[in-house]
Amino acid sequence: MRILGVDPGTINLGYGVVDAEEEMHMVDCGVIHLPSRLPMEERLHSLYDELSKVIAIYKPNGVAIEEPFIGHNVKSAFAIGRAQAIAILAAVSQGLPVFYYSPARVKQQITSYGQSDKKQVQEMVRVQLGIAELPQPGDAADALAVAICHIQQRRLNQWLTEHTPK
Amino acid sequence: MRILGVDPGTINLGYGVVDAEEEMHMVDCGVIHLPSRLPMEERLHSLYDELSKVIAIYKPNGVAIEEPFIGHNVKSAFAIGRAQAIAILAAVSQGLPVFYYSPARVKQQITSYGQSDKKQVQEMVRVQLGIAELPQPGDAADALAVAICHIQQRRLNQWLTEHTPK
Repeated sequence: MRILGVDPGTINLGYGVVDAEEEMHMVDCGVIHLPSRLPMEERLHSLYDELSKVIAIYKPNGVAIEEPFIGHNVKSAFAIGRAQAIAILAAVSQGLPVFYYSPARVKQQITSYGQSDKKQVQEMVRVQLGIAELPQPGDAADALAVAICHIQQRRLNQWLTEHTPK
Repeated sequence: MRILGVDPGTINLGYGVVDAEEEMHMVDCGVIHLPSRLPMEERLHSLYDELSKVIAIYKPNGVAIEEPFIGHNVKSAFAIGRAQAIAILAAVSQGLPVFYYSPARVKQQITSYGQSDKKQVQEMVRVQLGIAELPQPGDAADALAVAICHIQQRRLNQWLTEHTPK
């Protein structure tokens, strides 16, 4: 199973590709940077193109998107909604299923504690992927975290299905 | 000049195609309906496909989008941001420039009064396009209004350019 994790933002969109067999390992990760000086239409267009390329190259089996924390600011909610929509469209245009995880869910899944800080989450991502150093910037690591979260969730569901008395 | 007006909504997206030579006339208009029972990914995907078809068929010179009134509800702002992003992407993917008009701007332009009600705006749309009856539902008429707003704005700008002392 290969999962593309996405951490959608309006300036930086982090992505991380994780393969899961016996162990998990990182295939690639990075950040699609959308300079705020560019007109919004151009940013949305290049976000779509870049993310579509990542999907076409790595051919994941599914896409796990971190549901952004939208807070109380309607303007920023509006902007984040736009970025998320483009990520979803890139995935469904290539026939991929999309899964959503809240930031608290990702933390809970990765560190078994929903209130853990960013650093603890990133350290667990590093350990689980067996890599010496976490990728920078943090958006790429956040995208890896949501991919791992989805993989663990799928494994848990599978385990439960196999071990639930009929 | 042929303009596609778009009134983006999360359930109904209205569109209207207007030609402007000496007079303006309506080429087509309609509503892309996105049933709320469908998963959000499917709705965004069919919105993109349907709107891309409209653009491919009518080949407008530009797209005028009504900037939605996002109010104070972050959840609905988030959802409307998604619909708007898809409309923008459909336009820029076919190389079209996109223009934005607030609801108040559309009213002001069409009826010369920013506080006019929906009915007055629709009546002016009907008169300007020289049609006997306005299309139903209202989302299609709203999309025609934003197309007319853009055409009038362009004419005004052109007039000003020609009549401003050098």
